[in-house]
Amino acid sequence: MRDIISIEDLERSDIEKMFDAAFEIESKKLHKSSWCLLKDKTVILAFFEPSTRTRLSFELASKRLCAHTLSVVGEEAISLAKGESFRDTIKVFDTLGDLIVIRHSREGSARYAAEIAESPVINAGDGRNHHPTQSLIDLYTIKKLKGDIDGLSYAVVGDLRYARTARSFLLALTKFKPKSIYLVAPPPLKPPHNLLEKLRNKGFRIYETEKVEDVINMVDVLYVTRIQRERIPDPQEYERVKGSYRITRDLLRKAKSDLIVLHPLPRLDELDIAIDETKHAAYFEQVKSAVPIRMTALAWSAGVL
Amino acid sequence: MRDIISIEDLERSDIEKMFDAAFEIESKKLHKSSWCLLKDKTVILAFFEPSTRTRLSFELASKRLCAHTLSVVGEEAISLAKGESFRDTIKVFDTLGDLIVIRHSREGSARYAAEIAESPVINAGDGRNHHPTQSLIDLYTIKKLKGDIDGLSYAVVGDLRYARTARSFLLALTKFKPKSIYLVAPPPLKPPHNLLEKLRNKGFRIYETEKVEDVINMVDVLYVTRIQRERIPDPQEYERVKGSYRITRDLLRKAKSDLIVLHPLPRLDELDIAIDETKHAAYFEQVKSAVPIRMTALAWSAGVL
Amino acid sequence: MRDIISIEDLERSDIEKMFDAAFEIESKKLHKSSWCLLKDKTVILAFFEPSTRTRLSFELASKRLCAHTLSVVGEEAISLAKGESFRDTIKVFDTLGDLIVIRHSREGSARYAAEIAESPVINAGDGRNHHPTQSLIDLYTIKKLKGDIDGLSYAVVGDLRYARTARSFLLALTKFKPKSIYLVAPPPLKPPHNLLEKLRNKGFRIYETEKVEDVINMVDVLYVTRIQRERIPDPQEYERVKGSYRITRDLLRKAKSDLIVLHPLPRLDELDIAIDETKHAAYFEQVKSAVPIRMTALAWSAGVL
Repeated sequence: MRDIISIEDLERSDIEKMFDAAFEIESKKLHKSSWCLLKDKTVILAFFEPSTRTRLSFELASKRLCAHTLSVVGEEAISLAKGESFRDTIKVFDTLGDLIVIRHSREGSARYAAEIAESPVINAGDGRNHHPTQSLIDLYTIKKLKGDIDGLSYAVVGDLRYARTARSFLLALTKFKPKSIYLVAPPPLKPPHNLLEKLRNKGFRIYETEKVEDVINMVDVLYVTRIQRERIPDPQEYERVKGSYRITRDLLRKAKSDLIVLHPLPRLDELDIAIDETKHAAYFEQVKSAVPIRMTALAWSAGVL
Repeated sequence: MRDIISIEDLERSDIEKMFDAAFEIESKKLHKSSWCLLKDKTVILAFFEPSTRTRLSFELASKRLCAHTLSVVGEEAISLAKGESFRDTIKVFDTLGDLIVIRHSREGSARYAAEIAESPVINAGDGRNHHPTQSLIDLYTIKKLKGDIDGLSYAVVGDLRYARTARSFLLALTKFKPKSIYLVAPPPLKPPHNLLEKLRNKGFRIYETEKVEDVINMVDVLYVTRIQRERIPDPQEYERVKGSYRITRDLLRKAKSDLIVLHPLPRLDELDIAIDETKHAAYFEQVKSAVPIRMTALAWSAGVL
Repeated sequence: MRDIISIEDLERSDIEKMFDAAFEIESKKLHKSSWCLLKDKTVILAFFEPSTRTRLSFELASKRLCAHTLSVVGEEAISLAKGESFRDTIKVFDTLGDLIVIRHSREGSARYAAEIAESPVINAGDGRNHHPTQSLIDLYTIKKLKGDIDGLSYAVVGDLRYARTARSFLLALTKFKPKSIYLVAPPPLKPPHNLLEKLRNKGFRIYETEKVEDVINMVDVLYVTRIQRERIPDPQEYERVKGSYRITRDLLRKAKSDLIVLHPLPRLDELDIAIDETKHAAYFEQVKSAVPIRMTALAWSAGVL
C-alpha cells in the first residue's frame, strides 16, 4: 500500500502502470459501470478545504471500485479539527477507513497525515503545494490525445509562481522527456528559482517569455492556468499583462493545427469559451479523465493494481 | 432521454405512464426495496439552494433504482459556482453524471442547464418558477385517494401569486378535466393574469374568492399553501386576512365527508395540526408518494420507463 | 423494534446481547466487510448538531449492515427545522426512513422524536443529556480488554457535573457490579446529587476526591473527560485545578500495570499524547469499537438482533 503525496514521489513506471489501467478502464467503460477492486473497503474523503469537483470525482471513482465512501466537507471538517489535534483526527479516520483522500489548505498536511496513518493517503491538494492526481489527469489526457508525452513542445501559461497546478504539471514533466518547455508568465509570477533548477537539471530546453504570441506557433501542448488578480501587486500592471495571457480563438489561428489546450478548470477570462468548439479544446477531456485516473490512483494506492 | 423542467412540458399520457409505474412500485413495495432500472448510472443532486426534504427523497429514489448518487448542497454548491460560469459547472456535472437533478434560486436555471447538458435534467425547483415533481406528487396523491383527477372540484388556497407550488399545481390541472376550480387568495396574492388566462382557455370553470368558508362545502380537494407575511405589504392587512386562510378542524365540519386536504409542506399556522388526526388529512400521504413518484420521474427521464 | 434513548432504558441482558453480537462481528471481521441485516432499509442520520466522529461511525455501521443512508448535517438540518415544527420534520424522516439516528443540542429531543416516529430512534447525543451508544462503546471496550465489567475499580475524572459522557458512563455502570467507583472532580464540577443518589442506591462504594494522584494506584479503569475552562467560574481556580486532572506518563507510573485509560475523545491537554505509546492507552480501542457496537445497536433497534 502506498501514499500519493507529490507527483515527484512516483516513478515513471508507476505512472505508466496507472495510465495503462486507466486506458483499460475507459476502453471497457468500467468508469461507467464498476470494477470492484475495493469491495468492502472504506474511502474517507476528508475535504478540510472544499473542492467540489475533486471530491465528486474521487467519490464516484471510489463507488465505481465498489468501496464505501465517508465524506467530511468544509465547515464540518473544520469544526472537527477544532479542539482536537490534527493527529487525533487522522487517527480516527485511519481506524474507520482503508484509504484516506485529504484536501487541506495547509501545505504539508497530506504528508503529515501519511506519517500518522497506517492506511494509504492520497493528497487531493495541500495549499499551494501538490495535487498529484490532477497532474496525472493532465498527463494522461495528453497521452490519450497525442499518443505520447515525450518529444512534445509544451507552453505553460499563467501564474507559474503560486499556482499549484502549473507547478505540479511542470514537476510531472520531469518524469518524461519533453522536447522543449516554454514558460510564459508576467514578471511577478515567474517560476521560482528552485523549480527552474529542477527542470534544467533534467537537461530540458527551457525558454522564458512574457507573451503567448511569441511561442504559440511552436508548441504541441498549451497548458493554461488562471492569473489571480490579487497575486500581482500593482493593479495597473495586472490590467496591462492580463491581455497577454488571454487565449482566444484568434490567437489559436497561429497555432499548429493539432495543438491541444489544457486547463485544470475552473477557468475565468483567460480562456475564451469560443475555443470550446474547436478541435484544440482538451479541457473537457481532462474532466472525463478524472474518474478513470482517480480509480487507478485509489487502486494503486490500496496495493491492488 | 428527456428533461423534466416544467409540468407543462409533460403530456397527459406521460403523466399517466408515470402514475401507473408509481402504483406498481407501491403495490410491489419497490420503493421499500429496489428496482434496479438505473444500475451503474450516476445521479447528480445539485442543490444550489438547500431543500432537504426534496433532496432526501430524490436521493432515496435514486438509490432504490440502484443508481450512485453525488450530492452537492448549499454552501458547497454556491462556492463551486463562484468564480466559474454556471455553464462550466453544468458541463462538469454532465461529464460525471447520467442524470442531473437541479435546484437553484434563479428562475430559468434548470432550463438553461438542460440546454447545456446532454444528460437529462430534472428541475427540483427554480426560484418561484417550477417544481414539476412536486406537482406530480400532488396529482398522484389525489388519484390514489380519489380514484381520479378529472371531474373533481378543487379549491386552491393561499398565495396564488408568488407560491411556486400552488401555481405549478394549477398548471398541472390544465392537463386534466377538473369540474371546477376555486381560487382563494387575499387581493395582494391573487393569481397573475396570465395564469387565469391559461386556466380559462382550457374552458375550466374558475371562481375567485377571498374566504375559504365560502367554498369549503363544495370541494373535493382543498390545496393549501403558506401565506408568507412578507408578501403582504401592509402588516395590518396581513393580520386581518390571515384568519381567513387558516384551515381548522372547525372549518372542516362544513366540508364534504370525503374532502381531502393537500399541503406541500412545510406548514406553518395555516394548517392546524388537529387535522392530522382526521380522515381529511392527505399531506403525509403526499410525503409517502414522494419516493415512488421521483423513482418514476428519474426512470422516465433516463428513458428506461 | 426499539428506541435507544438513554443507557438507563436498556436491560443488562440487552447490553450483553449487543456485546456478544459485537464480539462476533469483530471476530468474523464483519465490520470490515458486511452483514446485511438491514438490506433495503434506510437509516436517516439527522445531525441537527454536527458530530463528525459519531456520524461517520453510524454511517459506516449502517452501510456495513447494507442499509441505505440519508444524512442531514448541521446548517442544512437547522434550516430544515426552521419554519416548520420539529414534529413535522420527524414525521417526514419517519416516512422516508426505517431507522432514525438523531443528534440535537436540545435535551429531550431524541425522546420526543421517539414519541412521534413509528420507526425506532437512536439517540446520538441530546445536549448534555444522553449518548447511549457512546456508553456502550466504553463498556464494550472494557469488557474486551479486561474480560469483565463487574468487580473492577473505576475512577472517573474530570467534569462530572456537565459532561455528558462521564455521567452516561456512570449511569451505564449501574447496570453492572463495579467493585468501587472513585469520582475525581474539582468542587465546581462535582457530580450532581441525584446522580450520586442513583449510584449509592445501587449499593456501590463511592469515593469522592479532587486529586487523581490519591486514587491512581487503586483502580483498574481510569475514565478521563475534558474539563472545559468555561465551566469553572474563576479562571485562577481553573489554572490551579487543571494540573490535578492532567494524566501524564509520570502519573501512570504509580498505576497498576494493567490499568486501562479510557477517553471518549476529542481530547485536549488533559491526556498526554505520550500515553498513546503505553499499554494503558485504550482510547483508540474505543474508536475501533464504534462501528461494531453501532452495527449491533442499529440491528437491535430494528428488531433483527
